Amino acid sequence: MNNLKDLNLDQRAALSPKEAREYFRKGQVLPTAGISAGYAQANLMIVPQELAFDVLLFAQRNPKSCPVLGVLEAGEVSSELFAGGDIRTDVPQYMVYENGVKVAEPTDLSEYWRDDLVTFIIGCSFTFESALIDSGISVAHIEQGVNVPMYKTTLRSKTAGKMSGPMVVSMRPIPASQVADAVRITSRYPAVHGAPVHIGNPEELGITDLSKPDFGDAVDIQEGAVPVFWACGVTPQAAVMESKPTLAIGHAPGHMLITDIKDSQYQVP
Amino acid sequence: MNNLKDLNLDQRAALSPKEAREYFRKGQVLPTAGISAGYAQANLMIVPQELAFDVLLFAQRNPKSCPVLGVLEAGEVSSELFAGGDIRTDVPQYMVYENGVKVAEPTDLSEYWRDDLVTFIIGCSFTFESALIDSGISVAHIEQGVNVPMYKTTLRSKTAGKMSGPMVVSMRPIPASQVADAVRITSRYPAVHGAPVHIGNPEELGITDLSKPDFGDAVDIQEGAVPVFWACGVTPQAAVMESKPTLAIGHAPGHMLITDIKDSQYQVP
Repeated sequence: MNNLKDLNLDQRAALSPKEAREYFRKGQVLPTAGISAGYAQANLMIVPQELAFDVLLFAQRNPKSCPVLGVLEAGEVSSELFAGGDIRTDVPQYMVYENGVKVAEPTDLSEYWRDDLVTFIIGCSFTFESALIDSGISVAHIEQGVNVPMYKTTLRSKTAGKMSGPMVVSMRPIPASQVADAVRITSRYPAVHGAPVHIGNPEELGITDLSKPDFGDAVDIQEGAVPVFWACGVTPQAAVMESKPTLAIGHAPGHMLITDIKDSQYQVP
Repeated sequence: MNNLKDLNLDQRAALSPKEAREYFRKGQVLPTAGISAGYAQANLMIVPQELAFDVLLFAQRNPKSCPVLGVLEAGEVSSELFAGGDIRTDVPQYMVYENGVKVAEPTDLSEYWRDDLVTFIIGCSFTFESALIDSGISVAHIEQGVNVPMYKTTLRSKTAGKMSGPMVVSMRPIPASQVADAVRITSRYPAVHGAPVHIGNPEELGITDLSKPDFGDAVDIQEGAVPVFWACGVTPQAAVMESKPTLAIGHAPGHMLITDIKDSQYQVP
Protein backbone atom coordinates (compact mmCIF):
# COMPACT_ATOMS: atom_id res chain seq x y z
CA MET A 1 0.00 0.00 0.00
CA ASN A 2 1.28 3.44 -1.00
CA ASN A 3 1.62 6.26 1.42
CA LEU A 4 -1.48 8.43 0.94
CA LYS A 5 0.63 11.58 1.16
CA ASP A 6 2.63 10.44 -1.89
CA LEU A 7 -0.44 10.39 -4.12
CA ASN A 8 -1.01 13.49 -6.23
CA LEU A 9 -4.31 15.37 -6.11
CA ASP A 10 -5.77 13.51 -9.10
CA GLN A 11 -4.87 10.16 -7.58
CA ARG A 12 -6.45 11.13 -4.24
CA ALA A 13 -9.62 12.30 -6.00
CA ALA A 14 -9.83 9.01 -7.91
CA LEU A 15 -9.72 6.76 -4.82
CA SER A 16 -12.94 4.91 -4.14
CA PRO A 17 -14.39 5.59 -0.65
CA LYS A 18 -13.52 2.01 0.29
CA GLU A 19 -9.89 2.44 -0.80
CA ALA A 20 -9.62 5.74 1.08
CA ARG A 21 -11.02 4.21 4.26
CA GLU A 22 -8.47 1.38 4.00
CA TYR A 23 -5.62 3.92 4.10
CA PHE A 24 -7.11 5.45 7.25
CA ARG A 25 -7.71 2.04 8.81
CA LYS A 26 -3.97 1.40 8.49
CA GLY A 27 -3.34 4.52 10.56
CA GLN A 28 -2.50 7.03 7.86
CA VAL A 29 -3.57 10.59 8.72
CA LEU A 30 -4.48 13.28 6.21
CA PRO A 31 -7.27 15.86 5.90
CA THR A 32 -9.94 14.38 3.64
CA ALA A 33 -10.68 17.39 1.42
CA GLY A 34 -10.21 16.35 -2.19
CA ILE A 35 -10.15 12.61 -1.48
CA SER A 36 -12.73 10.42 -3.27
CA ALA A 37 -14.23 13.28 -5.27
CA GLY A 38 -17.98 13.14 -5.69
CA TYR A 39 -18.64 11.17 -2.51
CA ALA A 40 -20.22 12.71 0.59
CA GLN A 41 -18.00 13.27 3.60
CA ALA A 42 -19.51 13.48 7.06
CA ASN A 43 -19.05 14.78 10.59
CA LEU A 44 -18.91 12.29 13.43
CA MET A 45 -20.49 12.52 16.88
CA ILE A 46 -20.29 9.55 19.23
CA VAL A 47 -21.98 9.67 22.64
CA PRO A 48 -23.10 7.26 25.37
CA GLN A 49 -26.61 5.88 24.98
CA GLU A 50 -27.90 7.93 27.91
CA LEU A 51 -27.29 11.13 25.89
CA ALA A 52 -28.38 9.70 22.51
CA PHE A 53 -32.05 10.76 22.69
CA ASP A 54 -31.04 14.33 23.53
CA VAL A 55 -28.61 14.43 20.59
CA LEU A 56 -31.19 13.05 18.15
CA LEU A 57 -33.86 15.44 19.46
CA PHE A 58 -31.38 18.33 19.16
CA ALA A 59 -30.87 17.32 15.54
CA GLN A 60 -34.63 17.13 14.92
CA ARG A 61 -35.05 20.64 16.35
CA ASN A 62 -31.98 22.11 14.61
CA PRO A 63 -32.00 20.39 11.23
CA LYS A 64 -30.01 23.07 9.42
CA SER A 65 -26.99 22.80 11.72
CA CYS A 66 -27.36 19.10 12.53
CA PRO A 67 -28.53 17.14 9.46
CA VAL A 68 -28.39 13.47 10.45
CA LEU A 69 -27.38 11.20 7.56
CA GLY A 70 -27.32 8.04 9.67
CA VAL A 71 -27.22 6.62 13.18
CA LEU A 72 -25.37 3.53 14.42
CA GLU A 73 -27.25 2.10 17.39
CA ALA A 74 -25.52 1.31 20.68
CA GLY A 75 -22.42 -0.77 20.03
CA GLU A 76 -22.81 -0.90 16.25
CA VAL A 77 -19.61 -0.11 14.34
CA SER A 78 -20.68 -0.38 10.70
CA SER A 79 -23.46 0.89 8.47
CA GLU A 80 -24.65 0.82 4.86
CA LEU A 81 -23.29 4.39 4.61
CA PHE A 82 -19.73 2.98 4.60
CA ALA A 83 -20.14 -0.66 3.59
CA GLY A 84 -17.63 -3.05 5.09
CA GLY A 85 -16.17 -0.33 7.25
CA ASP A 86 -15.59 0.12 10.97
CA ILE A 87 -16.33 3.46 12.60
CA ARG A 88 -13.58 2.84 15.18
CA THR A 89 -10.80 2.85 12.58
CA ASP A 90 -12.01 4.31 9.28
CA VAL A 91 -11.81 8.01 10.11
CA PRO A 92 -8.27 9.43 9.81
CA GLN A 93 -8.21 10.99 13.29
CA TYR A 94 -10.57 11.37 16.24
CA MET A 95 -11.03 13.74 19.17
CA VAL A 96 -11.88 12.08 22.49
CA TYR A 97 -13.53 14.14 25.23
CA GLU A 98 -14.13 13.10 28.83
CA ASN A 99 -16.45 15.31 30.90
CA GLY A 100 -16.19 17.97 28.18
CA VAL A 101 -12.36 18.06 28.16
CA LYS A 102 -10.29 16.77 25.24
CA VAL A 103 -8.08 13.92 26.44
CA ALA A 104 -6.73 12.39 23.22
CA GLU A 105 -6.54 12.64 19.42
CA PRO A 106 -6.11 8.98 18.42
CA THR A 107 -6.21 7.47 14.94
CA ASP A 108 -8.01 4.39 16.28
CA LEU A 109 -10.79 4.19 18.87
CA SER A 110 -10.23 0.60 20.00
CA GLU A 111 -9.05 1.47 23.50
CA TYR A 112 -11.94 3.94 24.05
CA TRP A 113 -14.79 1.90 22.55
CA ARG A 114 -17.75 0.92 24.73
CA ASP A 115 -20.79 -1.08 23.75
CA ASP A 116 -23.12 1.69 24.91
CA LEU A 117 -21.78 4.19 22.36
CA VAL A 118 -24.18 5.56 19.73
CA THR A 119 -22.71 7.09 16.56
CA PHE A 120 -24.28 9.99 14.68
CA ILE A 121 -23.14 10.67 11.12
CA ILE A 122 -23.90 14.27 10.26
CA GLY A 123 -23.90 16.02 6.88
CA CYS A 124 -21.06 18.36 5.91
CA SER A 125 -20.98 21.32 3.56
CA PHE A 126 -18.19 19.86 1.40
CA THR A 127 -21.04 18.43 -0.66
CA PHE A 128 -22.59 21.72 -1.69
CA GLU A 129 -19.19 23.37 -2.19
CA SER A 130 -18.62 21.12 -5.20
CA ALA A 131 -22.00 22.22 -6.57
CA LEU A 132 -21.09 25.89 -6.05
CA ILE A 133 -17.78 25.49 -7.86
CA ASP A 134 -19.44 23.55 -10.68
CA SER A 135 -21.76 26.53 -11.14
CA GLY A 136 -18.89 29.00 -11.39
CA ILE A 137 -19.06 30.30 -7.82
CA SER A 138 -15.56 30.22 -6.36
CA VAL A 139 -15.16 29.16 -2.73
CA ALA A 140 -12.64 31.42 -1.00
CA HIS A 141 -11.16 29.00 1.54
CA ILE A 142 -10.60 26.35 -1.15
CA GLU A 143 -8.97 28.89 -3.49
CA GLN A 144 -6.82 30.14 -0.61
CA GLY A 145 -5.96 26.63 0.58
CA VAL A 146 -7.21 27.05 4.16
CA ASN A 147 -9.97 25.65 6.37
CA VAL A 148 -13.40 27.30 6.20
CA PRO A 149 -13.86 30.12 8.76
CA MET A 150 -16.44 29.33 11.45
CA TYR A 151 -17.95 31.66 14.07
CA LYS A 152 -19.96 31.25 17.25
CA THR A 153 -23.04 33.44 16.97
CA THR A 154 -25.41 35.07 19.43
CA LEU A 155 -28.19 32.92 17.95
CA ARG A 156 -29.09 30.07 20.27
CA SER A 157 -29.86 26.61 19.00
CA LYS A 158 -33.15 25.14 20.16
CA THR A 159 -32.52 23.26 23.40
CA ALA A 160 -33.14 19.50 23.66
CA GLY A 161 -32.74 17.88 27.07
CA LYS A 162 -29.17 18.47 28.19
CA MET A 163 -28.13 19.78 24.76
CA SER A 164 -27.96 23.55 24.34
CA GLY A 165 -25.52 26.03 22.89
CA PRO A 166 -24.89 28.73 20.31
CA MET A 167 -25.47 28.23 16.62
CA VAL A 168 -22.08 28.02 14.90
CA VAL A 169 -21.95 29.23 11.30
CA SER A 170 -19.48 28.86 8.47
CA MET A 171 -18.86 31.87 6.20
CA ARG A 172 -18.15 32.05 2.49
CA PRO A 173 -17.70 35.47 0.84
CA ILE A 174 -19.72 35.51 -2.39
CA PRO A 175 -19.72 38.21 -5.11
CA ALA A 176 -22.97 40.21 -4.86
CA SER A 177 -24.02 39.14 -8.35
CA GLN A 178 -23.79 35.47 -7.35
CA VAL A 179 -25.42 35.51 -3.88
CA ALA A 180 -28.84 34.59 -5.25
CA ASP A 181 -27.32 31.69 -7.18
CA ALA A 182 -25.52 30.50 -4.04
CA VAL A 183 -28.85 30.49 -2.17
CA ARG A 184 -30.61 28.64 -4.98
CA ILE A 185 -27.89 26.00 -5.32
CA THR A 186 -27.31 25.28 -1.62
CA SER A 187 -31.05 25.19 -0.87
CA ARG A 188 -31.12 22.03 -2.99
CA TYR A 189 -28.90 20.29 -0.40
CA PRO A 190 -30.93 20.30 2.84
CA ALA A 191 -29.05 17.21 4.10
CA VAL A 192 -25.79 19.16 4.15
CA HIS A 193 -26.94 22.39 5.85
CA GLY A 194 -28.99 23.71 2.91
CA ALA A 195 -29.68 27.40 2.29
CA PRO A 196 -27.79 30.13 4.19
CA VAL A 197 -29.14 31.23 7.57
CA HIS A 198 -27.92 34.83 7.17
CA ILE A 199 -26.61 37.03 4.34
CA GLY A 200 -24.59 40.19 5.07
CA ASN A 201 -24.52 42.12 8.37
CA PRO A 202 -22.34 39.84 10.50
CA GLU A 203 -22.94 42.21 13.46
CA GLU A 204 -26.50 40.91 13.73
CA LEU A 205 -25.03 37.48 14.52
CA GLY A 206 -22.70 38.99 17.12
CA ILE A 207 -19.69 38.62 14.82
CA THR A 208 -17.60 41.77 15.19
CA ASP A 209 -14.48 40.79 13.24
CA LEU A 210 -14.63 38.40 10.28
CA SER A 211 -10.82 38.12 10.35
CA LYS A 212 -10.98 36.35 13.72
CA PRO A 213 -13.02 33.15 13.31
CA ASP A 214 -13.65 30.99 16.38
CA PHE A 215 -12.74 27.84 14.43
CA GLY A 216 -10.90 27.26 11.15
CA ASP A 217 -9.01 29.97 9.31
CA ALA A 218 -9.68 33.55 8.24
CA VAL A 219 -10.08 34.13 4.50
CA ASP A 220 -9.34 37.21 2.43
CA ILE A 221 -12.63 38.79 1.33
CA GLN A 222 -12.56 40.11 -2.20
CA GLU A 223 -13.85 43.65 -2.96
CA GLY A 224 -17.63 43.67 -3.40
CA ALA A 225 -18.21 40.24 -1.90
CA VAL A 226 -20.98 39.68 0.64
CA PRO A 227 -20.37 37.43 3.67
CA VAL A 228 -22.84 34.54 3.46
CA PHE A 229 -23.42 32.35 6.53
CA TRP A 230 -24.48 28.73 6.66
CA ALA A 231 -25.38 26.65 9.73
CA CYS A 232 -22.34 24.56 10.64
CA GLY A 233 -21.84 20.98 11.79
CA VAL A 234 -19.73 22.23 14.71
CA THR A 235 -23.01 23.35 16.34
CA PRO A 236 -23.99 19.93 17.75
CA GLN A 237 -20.41 19.30 18.90
CA ALA A 238 -20.47 22.56 20.85
CA ALA A 239 -23.74 21.54 22.49
CA VAL A 240 -22.48 18.06 23.35
CA MET A 241 -19.38 19.53 24.99
CA GLU A 242 -21.48 21.93 27.07
CA SER A 243 -23.41 18.96 28.47
CA LYS A 244 -20.10 17.40 29.61
CA PRO A 245 -20.87 13.72 29.01
CA THR A 246 -18.56 11.14 30.57
CA LEU A 247 -17.34 10.31 27.06
CA ALA A 248 -17.84 11.94 23.66
CA ILE A 249 -15.92 11.38 20.44
CA GLY A 250 -15.79 13.48 17.27
CA HIS A 251 -13.57 13.58 14.22
CA ALA A 252 -10.52 15.84 14.09
CA PRO A 253 -11.40 19.01 12.11
CA GLY A 254 -11.12 18.38 8.38
CA HIS A 255 -10.57 14.65 8.93
CA MET A 256 -14.01 13.39 7.97
CA LEU A 257 -15.73 10.06 7.41
CA ILE A 258 -15.79 9.36 3.65
CA THR A 259 -19.09 7.66 2.85
CA ASP A 260 -20.17 5.52 -0.11
CA ILE A 261 -22.99 7.97 -0.89
CA LYS A 262 -22.66 10.10 -4.01
CA ASP A 263 -22.92 13.85 -3.39
CA SER A 264 -25.67 13.95 -6.00
CA GLN A 265 -27.91 11.70 -3.89
CA TYR A 266 -28.35 14.51 -1.39
CA GLN A 267 -29.65 16.90 -4.04
CA VAL A 268 -33.38 17.75 -4.07
CA PRO A 269 -35.77 17.93 -5.79
CA MET B 1 -70.11 27.25 25.25
CA ASN B 2 -72.04 25.74 22.35
CA ASN B 3 -72.08 22.08 21.58
CA LEU B 4 -69.52 21.55 18.81
CA LYS B 5 -71.90 19.17 17.02
CA ASP B 6 -74.45 21.98 16.72
CA LEU B 7 -72.11 24.16 14.70
CA ASN B 8 -72.53 24.00 10.94
CA LEU B 9 -69.57 23.19 8.66
CA ASP B 10 -68.72 26.84 8.03
CA GLN B 11 -68.75 27.58 11.73
CA ARG B 12 -66.50 24.58 12.45
CA ALA B 13 -64.07 25.63 9.72
CA ALA B 14 -63.92 29.16 11.13
CA LEU B 15 -62.96 28.11 14.68
CA SER B 16 -59.45 29.11 15.66
CA PRO B 17 -57.25 26.17 16.73
CA LYS B 18 -57.35 27.51 20.29
CA GLU B 19 -61.17 27.62 20.27
CA ALA B 20 -61.36 24.11 18.85
CA ARG B 21 -58.99 22.74 21.49
CA GLU B 22 -61.13 24.36 24.19
CA TYR B 23 -64.14 22.36 23.02
CA PHE B 24 -62.12 19.16 23.22
CA ARG B 25 -60.68 20.09 26.61
CA LYS B 26 -64.26 20.26 27.92
CA GLY B 27 -64.72 16.67 26.82
CA GLN B 28 -66.57 17.12 23.55
CA VAL B 29 -65.78 14.40 20.99
CA LEU B 30 -65.90 14.85 17.21
CA PRO B 31 -63.66 13.87 14.29
CA THR B 32 -61.51 16.88 13.46
CA ALA B 33 -61.76 16.85 9.65
CA GLY B 34 -63.01 20.25 8.54
CA ILE B 35 -62.42 21.98 11.88
CA SER B 36 -60.13 25.07 11.90
CA ALA B 37 -59.59 25.07 8.14
CA GLY B 38 -56.08 25.97 7.02
CA TYR B 39 -54.37 24.77 10.21
CA ALA B 40 -52.26 21.62 10.35
CA GLN B 41 -53.67 18.63 12.20
CA ALA B 42 -51.35 16.00 13.62
CA ASN B 43 -51.04 12.39 14.72
CA LEU B 44 -50.11 11.68 18.32
CA MET B 45 -47.71 9.06 19.68
CA ILE B 46 -46.90 9.03 23.38
CA VAL B 47 -44.41 6.50 24.80
CA PRO B 48 -42.32 6.00 27.94
CA GLN B 49 -38.88 7.61 27.88
CA GLU B 50 -37.16 4.23 27.60
CA LEU B 51 -38.67 3.78 24.12
CA ALA B 52 -38.32 7.42 23.03
CA PHE B 53 -34.91 7.11 21.35
CA ASP B 54 -36.11 4.15 19.30
CA VAL B 55 -39.22 6.05 18.19
CA LEU B 56 -37.21 9.14 17.19
CA LEU B 57 -34.64 6.99 15.38
CA PHE B 58 -37.47 5.14 13.61
CA ALA B 59 -38.75 8.52 12.47
CA GLN B 60 -35.30 9.59 11.29
CA ARG B 61 -34.99 6.40 9.24
CA ASN B 62 -38.55 6.45 7.91
CA PRO B 63 -39.20 10.15 7.33
CA LYS B 64 -41.93 9.66 4.73
CA SER B 65 -44.16 7.64 7.04
CA CYS B 66 -43.13 9.32 10.30
CA PRO B 67 -42.56 13.06 9.76
CA VAL B 68 -41.97 14.53 13.21
CA LEU B 69 -43.40 18.04 13.61
CA GLY B 70 -42.49 18.33 17.28
CA VAL B 71 -41.49 16.44 20.42
CA LEU B 72 -42.52 17.13 24.02
CA GLU B 73 -39.76 15.93 26.33
CA ALA B 74 -40.46 13.63 29.27
CA GLY B 75 -43.30 15.00 31.36
CA GLU B 76 -43.92 18.07 29.20
CA VAL B 77 -47.59 18.67 28.34
CA SER B 78 -47.47 21.80 26.19
CA SER B 79 -45.56 23.12 23.19
CA GLU B 80 -45.38 26.14 20.91
CA LEU B 81 -47.19 23.97 18.32
CA PHE B 82 -50.40 24.38 20.36
CA ALA B 83 -49.82 27.45 22.51
CA GLY B 84 -51.51 27.43 25.90
CA GLY B 85 -52.69 23.86 25.37
CA ASP B 86 -52.34 20.61 27.30
CA ILE B 87 -51.63 17.40 25.41
CA ARG B 88 -53.51 15.41 28.08
CA THR B 89 -56.84 17.07 27.32
CA ASP B 90 -56.76 18.90 23.99
CA VAL B 91 -57.21 15.97 21.61
CA PRO B 92 -60.86 14.86 21.26
CA GLN B 93 -60.21 11.20 22.04
CA TYR B 94 -57.23 8.97 22.80
CA MET B 95 -56.33 5.28 22.49
CA VAL B 96 -54.43 3.83 25.47
CA TYR B 97 -52.40 0.64 24.98
CA GLU B 98 -50.75 -1.46 27.68
CA ASN B 99 -48.29 -4.12 26.53
CA GLY B 100 -49.58 -3.67 22.97
CA VAL B 101 -53.25 -4.20 23.89
CA LYS B 102 -55.82 -1.40 23.78
CA VAL B 103 -57.26 -0.87 27.25
CA ALA B 104 -59.20 2.40 26.98
CA GLU B 105 -60.40 5.19 24.67
CA PRO B 106 -60.60 8.14 27.08
CA THR B 107 -61.22 11.79 26.25
CA ASP B 108 -58.76 12.87 28.95
CA LEU B 109 -55.39 11.34 29.86
CA SER B 110 -55.17 12.59 33.44
CA GLU B 111 -55.50 9.17 35.05
CA TYR B 112 -52.90 7.62 32.69
CA TRP B 113 -50.31 10.40 32.67
CA ARG B 114 -46.79 9.69 33.91
CA ASP B 115 -43.86 12.08 34.12
CA ASP B 116 -41.69 9.78 31.99
CA LEU B 117 -43.96 10.06 28.95
CA VAL B 118 -42.53 11.58 25.76
CA THR B 119 -44.97 12.92 23.14
CA PHE B 120 -44.34 12.81 19.41
CA ILE B 121 -46.44 15.04 17.16
CA ILE B 122 -46.43 13.60 13.66
CA GLY B 123 -47.54 15.17 10.38
CA CYS B 124 -50.80 14.13 8.74
CA SER B 125 -51.88 14.14 5.11
CA PHE B 126 -54.93 16.34 5.76
CA THR B 127 -52.57 19.19 4.93
CA PHE B 128 -51.76 18.17 1.38
CA GLU B 129 -55.34 17.12 0.70
CA SER B 130 -56.38 20.76 0.89
CA ALA B 131 -53.67 21.60 -1.63
CA LEU B 132 -54.86 18.83 -3.97
CA ILE B 133 -58.45 20.06 -3.82
CA ASP B 134 -57.36 23.66 -4.35
CA SER B 135 -55.65 22.48 -7.55
CA GLY B 136 -58.76 20.79 -8.87
CA ILE B 137 -57.85 17.24 -7.89
CA SER B 138 -60.78 15.69 -6.07
CA VAL B 139 -60.09 13.45 -3.07
CA ALA B 140 -62.34 10.38 -3.20
CA HIS B 141 -62.77 9.71 0.51
CA ILE B 142 -63.65 13.34 1.20
CA GLU B 143 -66.16 13.40 -1.68
CA GLN B 144 -67.62 10.10 -0.46
CA GLY B 145 -67.68 11.21 3.19
CA VAL B 146 -65.62 8.33 4.56
CA ASN B 147 -62.21 7.82 6.20
CA VAL B 148 -59.18 7.40 3.90
CA PRO B 149 -58.44 3.73 3.04
CA MET B 150 -55.17 2.45 4.52
CA TYR B 151 -53.34 -0.81 3.81
CA LYS B 152 -50.53 -2.77 5.41
CA THR B 153 -47.93 -3.48 2.72
CA THR B 154 -45.23 -6.09 2.24
CA LEU B 155 -42.68 -3.26 2.35
CA ARG B 156 -40.86 -3.21 5.67
CA SER B 157 -40.01 0.00 7.45
CA LYS B 158 -36.37 0.43 8.39
CA THR B 159 -35.88 -1.01 11.86
CA ALA B 160 -34.74 1.17 14.78
CA GLY B 161 -34.01 -0.55 18.09
CA LYS B 162 -37.24 -2.25 19.21
CA MET B 163 -39.27 -0.53 16.50
CA SER B 164 -40.04 -2.54 13.37
CA GLY B 165 -43.06 -3.27 11.24
CA PRO B 166 -44.67 -2.98 7.82
CA MET B 167 -45.04 0.28 5.97
CA VAL B 168 -48.68 1.31 6.04
CA VAL B 169 -49.92 3.37 3.09
CA SER B 170 -52.97 5.48 2.40
CA MET B 171 -54.54 5.31 -1.06
CA ARG B 172 -56.23 7.99 -3.13
CA PRO B 173 -57.53 7.12 -6.62
CA ILE B 174 -56.45 9.88 -9.02
CA PRO B 175 -57.50 10.36 -12.68
CA ALA B 176 -54.58 9.36 -14.93
CA SER B 177 -54.35 12.87 -16.37
CA GLN B 178 -53.85 14.32 -12.87
CA VAL B 179 -51.39 11.81 -11.36
CA ALA B 180 -48.35 13.89 -12.31
CA ASP B 181 -49.95 16.97 -10.73
CA ALA B 182 -50.70 15.01 -7.55
CA VAL B 183 -47.01 14.01 -7.35
CA ARG B 184 -45.83 17.55 -7.97
CA ILE B 185 -48.19 19.08 -5.40
CA THR B 186 -47.69 16.58 -2.59
CA SER B 187 -43.90 16.52 -3.05
CA ARG B 188 -43.97 20.11 -1.81
CA TYR B 189 -45.20 18.88 1.59
CA PRO B 190 -42.41 16.61 2.90
CA ALA B 191 -43.48 17.28 6.51
CA VAL B 192 -46.84 15.62 5.88
CA HIS B 193 -45.72 12.47 4.02
CA GLY B 194 -44.69 14.23 0.78
CA ALA B 195 -44.67 12.53 -2.62
CA PRO B 196 -46.31 9.13 -3.19
CA VAL B 197 -44.28 5.99 -2.47
CA HIS B 198 -46.01 3.94 -5.19
CA ILE B 199 -48.28 4.63 -8.17
CA GLY B 200 -50.42 1.86 -9.71
CA ASN B 201 -49.87 -1.91 -9.32
CA PRO B 202 -51.10 -2.47 -5.77
CA GLU B 203 -50.05 -6.15 -6.07
CA GLU B 204 -46.40 -5.09 -5.82
CA LEU B 205 -47.17 -3.79 -2.35
CA GLY B 206 -48.92 -7.05 -1.43
CA ILE B 207 -52.37 -5.43 -1.68
CA THR B 208 -54.67 -7.92 -3.36
CA ASP B 209 -58.04 -6.22 -2.90
CA LEU B 210 -58.37 -2.44 -2.75
CA SER B 211 -61.95 -2.82 -1.51
CA LYS B 212 -60.69 -4.34 1.75
CA PRO B 213 -58.45 -1.79 3.48
CA ASP B 214 -56.75 -2.77 6.75
CA PHE B 215 -57.73 0.55 8.33
CA GLY B 216 -60.26 3.23 7.40
CA ASP B 217 -62.91 2.76 4.73
CA ALA B 218 -63.00 1.48 1.16
CA VAL B 219 -63.69 4.08 -1.53
CA ASP B 220 -65.34 3.74 -4.92
CA ILE B 221 -62.67 4.06 -7.61
CA GLN B 222 -63.83 5.99 -10.64
CA GLU B 223 -63.25 4.60 -14.15
CA GLY B 224 -59.75 5.43 -15.41
CA ALA B 225 -58.36 6.42 -12.04
CA VAL B 226 -54.97 5.15 -10.87
CA PRO B 227 -54.47 4.09 -7.24
CA VAL B 228 -51.79 6.34 -5.75
CA PHE B 229 -50.17 5.37 -2.45
CA TRP B 230 -48.65 7.63 0.18
CA ALA B 231 -46.73 6.62 3.32
CA CYS B 232 -49.13 6.78 6.25
CA GLY B 233 -48.86 8.02 9.83
CA VAL B 234 -50.26 4.71 11.06
CA THR B 235 -46.84 3.17 10.26
CA PRO B 236 -45.10 4.29 13.48
CA GLN B 237 -48.14 3.31 15.56
CA ALA B 238 -47.99 -0.21 14.11
CA ALA B 239 -44.29 -0.43 14.99
CA VAL B 240 -44.84 0.86 18.53
CA MET B 241 -47.56 -1.72 19.12
CA GLU B 242 -45.31 -4.54 17.88
CA SER B 243 -42.72 -3.55 20.49
CA LYS B 244 -45.40 -3.93 23.22
CA PRO B 245 -44.33 -1.09 25.55
CA THR B 246 -45.82 -1.03 29.07
CA LEU B 247 -47.79 2.05 28.01
CA ALA B 248 -48.40 3.78 24.68
CA ILE B 249 -51.01 6.38 23.79
CA GLY B 250 -52.24 7.55 20.40
CA HIS B 251 -55.17 9.58 19.16
CA ALA B 252 -58.42 7.91 18.12
CA PRO B 253 -58.49 7.63 14.29
CA GLY B 254 -59.64 10.88 12.73
CA HIS B 255 -59.55 12.66 16.09
CA MET B 256 -56.35 14.65 15.63
CA LEU B 257 -54.43 17.33 17.46
CA ILE B 258 -55.26 20.70 15.87
CA THR B 259 -52.09 22.79 15.87
CA ASP B 260 -51.56 26.54 15.58
CA ILE B 261 -49.38 26.03 12.50
CA LYS B 262 -50.78 27.12 9.14
CA ASP B 263 -50.85 24.38 6.50
CA SER B 264 -48.91 26.72 4.23
CA GLN B 265 -45.93 26.74 6.59
CA TYR B 266 -45.22 23.13 5.68
CA GLN B 267 -44.98 23.90 1.98
CA VAL B 268 -41.56 23.89 0.31
CA PRO B 269 -39.67 25.32 -1.41
